[in-house]
Amino acid sequence: MDISAYMADVGQKARAAATAVARSSTAERNDALLAMADALDASRDALTQANRQDLEAGRENGLEPAMLDRLELTPARIDAMIEGLRQVASLPDPIGEITGMSYRPSGIQVGKMRVPLGVIGIIYESRPNVTVEAASLCLKSGNATVLRGGSESLHSNQAIAACIAEGLRKVGLPEEAVQVIKTRDREAVGKLIAMPEYVDVIVPRGGKGLIERISRDARVPVIKHLDGVCHVYVDSHADPEKALAIAVNAKTQRYGTCNTMETLLVDAEIAADILPLLARAFEEKGVELRGCDRTRDILANVASATEDDWHAEYLAPILAVRVVDGLDAAIAHINRYSSQHTDAIVTENYTRARRFLTEVDSSSVMVNASTRFADGFEYGLGAEIGISTDKLHARGPVGLEGLTSQKYVVFGDGHIRS
Amino acid sequence: MDISAYMADVGQKARAAATAVARSSTAERNDALLAMADALDASRDALTQANRQDLEAGRENGLEPAMLDRLELTPARIDAMIEGLRQVASLPDPIGEITGMSYRPSGIQVGKMRVPLGVIGIIYESRPNVTVEAASLCLKSGNATVLRGGSESLHSNQAIAACIAEGLRKVGLPEEAVQVIKTRDREAVGKLIAMPEYVDVIVPRGGKGLIERISRDARVPVIKHLDGVCHVYVDSHADPEKALAIAVNAKTQRYGTCNTMETLLVDAEIAADILPLLARAFEEKGVELRGCDRTRDILANVASATEDDWHAEYLAPILAVRVVDGLDAAIAHINRYSSQHTDAIVTENYTRARRFLTEVDSSSVMVNASTRFADGFEYGLGAEIGISTDKLHARGPVGLEGLTSQKYVVFGDGHIRS
Repeated sequence: MDISAYMADVGQKARAAATAVARSSTAERNDALLAMADALDASRDALTQANRQDLEAGRENGLEPAMLDRLELTPARIDAMIEGLRQVASLPDPIGEITGMSYRPSGIQVGKMRVPLGVIGIIYESRPNVTVEAASLCLKSGNATVLRGGSESLHSNQAIAACIAEGLRKVGLPEEAVQVIKTRDREAVGKLIAMPEYVDVIVPRGGKGLIERISRDARVPVIKHLDGVCHVYVDSHADPEKALAIAVNAKTQRYGTCNTMETLLVDAEIAADILPLLARAFEEKGVELRGCDRTRDILANVASATEDDWHAEYLAPILAVRVVDGLDAAIAHINRYSSQHTDAIVTENYTRARRFLTEVDSSSVMVNASTRFADGFEYGLGAEIGISTDKLHARGPVGLEGLTSQKYVVFGDGHIRS
Repeated sequence: MDISAYMADVGQKARAAATAVARSSTAERNDALLAMADALDASRDALTQANRQDLEAGRENGLEPAMLDRLELTPARIDAMIEGLRQVASLPDPIGEITGMSYRPSGIQVGKMRVPLGVIGIIYESRPNVTVEAASLCLKSGNATVLRGGSESLHSNQAIAACIAEGLRKVGLPEEAVQVIKTRDREAVGKLIAMPEYVDVIVPRGGKGLIERISRDARVPVIKHLDGVCHVYVDSHADPEKALAIAVNAKTQRYGTCNTMETLLVDAEIAADILPLLARAFEEKGVELRGCDRTRDILANVASATEDDWHAEYLAPILAVRVVDGLDAAIAHINRYSSQHTDAIVTENYTRARRFLTEVDSSSVMVNASTRFADGFEYGLGAEIGISTDKLHARGPVGLEGLTSQKYVVFGDGHIRS
């Protein structure tokens, strides 16, 4: 197979389909999503069979149990894909919204119209349900999409792609509006991220290694989500009950998510009072603490934190703890070690809360709330394609709006510039 | 000079200064801009002298007269720089604006806060007044900036930099908030665009060659403005008077700007009536026409347009003219040949106007107005750092907002996720 020619063909078809999708009505796109849901529902056997092929090959190739688990399309996961499509169909259409129309002294009227980005490339790893999730969000926002899933889920993804194509066909939208790459060849990824003429943006979803590689090599803009080294700072003016509840929730509500707290900062003024309470709560949850020297002066049994611990995204029941001298030291630590994902302060002090909000340069900054809230659904975006740790375009949880752009529209009545 | 070490030092200082600028108050940044204006006013002799050095070297090196003209700092141009600084100081501060705060079912309150991008690198060519313009917009929007001007204007830029530094010093902001690169070595540009740890975005201002090179090699996001191949489509339902006024204005009001019309499309239904009127008007202005075969059937003396003409950004009194079969053909031509900068329709037909607005994928789309209006000042942005032909982040004229980002802010009262 000539990968260059194949990907150029995919790209061309995507570009052509993008024009058709951009012109389609809200109802057409929603109907396509509902028709995809119906097609998935009617194809449960085919999906399960294709998935079984992937699972068998995975076992033969010695895939780890965790990978095999993510790969599996259980009946419940098929239900979730179907339900997801119906939910996306029910979201408001972001496309076409015109805002800010106002008259200028010259007499022209100027505003902005929300429009699709065009063609979105999504690169992801093992979970085949991402195929449906990514395709539905891109279509809803008026874009064409090229999907490249994990090579271990190729059969499952192709079976899902057949249902997506059926849905598009039913409403008369071009099937090429959603293309799932048919080859396992890694060269296809290299091509996909280097075709600015056909692809407008790449959204990689997966481990840090994948995302770093893609960001480095891409010739197309990337909406990327690197790591989540999130902090909670317990200020000396914190309400101890809130501090305890937030710290425990931010760390233990789920360990493996990017908005989980990885480092706890405690103001020296209250460290001796609150650290023992926090330590007890974390012990009950089975969380291992790694502390700075001042933490260990208070908590005798805590292991010593090294420089690496301040940088660590554990994604595990481990927590780094540091005693800091007040707000300035806390902000300095966060702006140095945070991955600029989500950071929170616990305080009752108005001025400190305001300073933390202004001076911490992260995509989500919180006062008296758990970092675990940093999520597209919790923020009311209705959907989430990922969480961006970039500053340009989309920052923080990315919903449908992050897959759109705004162009200027100008209304005149024969106006000319003088 | 070790360019790597020098640029790393510049980058580190810029990053540190960015934190200080981000924390500064609106009044401090405005006062700095006004102090810079005063310093320029008090340094007219030094500026003229430094500029004379550049002009003499330029003449010795055989710079073209047009380049020498752009390089010159006349008293009027120094006045304009001073006036520009005072105008930027008087603009509203974009930083800190909080929008969309709303309560979620969980009880948290979520919204967005506008924040600086951080460090902005600006790469530009001969005109030294860009130094003041770029520095002032970046500072106003709370960013630190690293400026790399044309090597032929090094002395002028350093003299301007001294005034900028004086302004910053006066209000107690770090001088490194605006750094003008002190070397002519081209390697400095290569380093500047490959330091994502120190530079958040690059804005290149200059010819297409410069911008293409930077976009290709950058390891940092680029807000770029490539070319302006702008169209006016005269629909069969156009008011002939408006069509004539708009076409002539879009082409002839200024020839060398990116929002000047380069191709005129005329609906076949009215071509025989309106083309002779248009031809006469353009002849009076001395504009050379290059037409398709159908244009030449109507206008006997017009030269034949080749495929290259549809792609051409003439920036000169030359205009490509094509007769098209209605709206669909016009949109197809535009979406194929336009540089997605600015395109306009002249029509009295509601449905056609609406379709043109929706289906033309350009950063500015206009109805019954001259493409020459595509400009940050005309759009009311108050300032313009450039016009972006990208789709992500900023599209079309980029004002202060384009130099900012939005982060999420979350207010809770001890809220945890369940």
